[in-house]
Amino acid sequence: MGAIACIGAGLVGRAWAVVFARAGHEVRLYDRDQEALNAVALPTIARILDGLDAAGMLAEPPAAIAARIRGAPSVEDAVTGTIHVQESVREDVAIKREVFAEIARHAPRDARLCSSTSALRGSEFLTHVEAPERAMVAHPVNPPSHIPLVEICGTGLTSPEAVADARAFFDGIGMKPIVLNKEIDGFILNRLQYTLVAEAMHLVGEGYCSASDIDRVMTDGLALRWASIGPFMVAHLNAAGGFRGFVGQLGPMMRRMGEDARTDYPWTDAMVEAIHAEMEAAVPISAIPERQHWRDGRILDTRKLQAG
Amino acid sequence: MGAIACIGAGLVGRAWAVVFARAGHEVRLYDRDQEALNAVALPTIARILDGLDAAGMLAEPPAAIAARIRGAPSVEDAVTGTIHVQESVREDVAIKREVFAEIARHAPRDARLCSSTSALRGSEFLTHVEAPERAMVAHPVNPPSHIPLVEICGTGLTSPEAVADARAFFDGIGMKPIVLNKEIDGFILNRLQYTLVAEAMHLVGEGYCSASDIDRVMTDGLALRWASIGPFMVAHLNAAGGFRGFVGQLGPMMRRMGEDARTDYPWTDAMVEAIHAEMEAAVPISAIPERQHWRDGRILDTRKLQAG
Repeated sequence: MGAIACIGAGLVGRAWAVVFARAGHEVRLYDRDQEALNAVALPTIARILDGLDAAGMLAEPPAAIAARIRGAPSVEDAVTGTIHVQESVREDVAIKREVFAEIARHAPRDARLCSSTSALRGSEFLTHVEAPERAMVAHPVNPPSHIPLVEICGTGLTSPEAVADARAFFDGIGMKPIVLNKEIDGFILNRLQYTLVAEAMHLVGEGYCSASDIDRVMTDGLALRWASIGPFMVAHLNAAGGFRGFVGQLGPMMRRMGEDARTDYPWTDAMVEAIHAEMEAAVPISAIPERQHWRDGRILDTRKLQAG
Repeated sequence: MGAIACIGAGLVGRAWAVVFARAGHEVRLYDRDQEALNAVALPTIARILDGLDAAGMLAEPPAAIAARIRGAPSVEDAVTGTIHVQESVREDVAIKREVFAEIARHAPRDARLCSSTSALRGSEFLTHVEAPERAMVAHPVNPPSHIPLVEICGTGLTSPEAVADARAFFDGIGMKPIVLNKEIDGFILNRLQYTLVAEAMHLVGEGYCSASDIDRVMTDGLALRWASIGPFMVAHLNAAGGFRGFVGQLGPMMRRMGEDARTDYPWTDAMVEAIHAEMEAAVPISAIPERQHWRDGRILDTRKLQAG
């Protein structure tokens, strides 16, 4: 199996290293901050692997997987001879442009060059590199060691073959890729997520219900379906005539909800503070790390349920 | 335990009968179509109970629960001496007005009168009845035998005590109630659901991705969190500073997604047909009943995971 370079060893880069090494690839992890790479990133990776092992998500002992990951002293060292490069550095166009120019100079001509960016469009920093037809966005959900979705999006210069290869590659290593046919701000997941949150802010801001009740609507209502089937399949299964029949029956109501939504509702500081206070009453700031740990366990449990 | 009347024995009314009987209440189930009540509704209830039993969700043998449910020959017979009436007849204002006038005439003065309506506002058909302070909407998610969320919403004439009692009552029988402080079209769940669907229609309609990829974004991305924690708690746990800190970091991006959303995007017949074709390729119309059965099992599995 080919070697893979992870450029940037923050939360996202570390989790990517786990994903690739778990699938059997040799991984070179580079960070500009070499001290943090050795003192923080590599030990954290060992802990992520231990957590996945405890949840029964690994096919090998954690140490065997960790042994495939090594720190790299330079971008050149990391990317030389790789089949895939995954960049996860700061969300800054100038930094990403510079990093990708260096990656493209040293990576093999046929290596796939992917960016984890969530906030930028690939065309802002991927089109100036050598052989830009191999460069694209492959946006994960944090942390990719636990959540398998990957949003692949070309820049306009990316070749259709490279996009298809990326989809097959991520599929083959246990991730769940989707492909965007053209660029859009926020890709798909964050657009859907924050469109729903925007309407939730409107409902809470106008005093219709509390933020905790919104959360209950999700966990005890909507997500009981969505954990197994997405919104279009939910509609398809909700009428004898399938999606067409559902829209025939409920289309006017569905459309009215969309037309009534106030996703541009302004957020005031007072609203944010009130919601913060409600959330903090349930989970104090000091308890967040413990609750994050619990959440990550639940994510893995839900994946096991989906696989069963 | 007090007796409960379910008025209307369609899909929703039957599932409510299961919910109340499972909690130990005697249930009288009435439908204008007495033949369907006996030939369809009561046998269906037995099958729902068998399914719940097979999933380990019942504390008693299904027959013991079914024995607490009986058909009623009239609204008067059904509601006399009850503590709670749950109406689930057709979504037609005139019919609901008439049914509620009859319910209110015969039910005890202190019985709670609830409507399952999803499409109407309670103030359209609940304010003219005798003692309207006891009447409100208690909107379930279909089927309430499997999904515990209930959206409680008064009419403006409903007393705060009746609303608080309803919340406590639903809590006590294993449901998960929320309370709306004032009326809004669609309540909360459908507003959130169809706001997200509206943006999904925009993304698919404009060719950014396929409907199946939208569904994958949900099942392999968003819902892995949402099955355990709602959108506000997701944000609270995603930053060291909690919700306030998350909005401080990502607020501009979150708001931009809401502002960019096109939830009023027009749905063409061609779009609906294309999505129908995509869904039907995955689940043919003839396979829908079997897939519904699978879905309901998954819903129960997800609830067990949440309870664990």
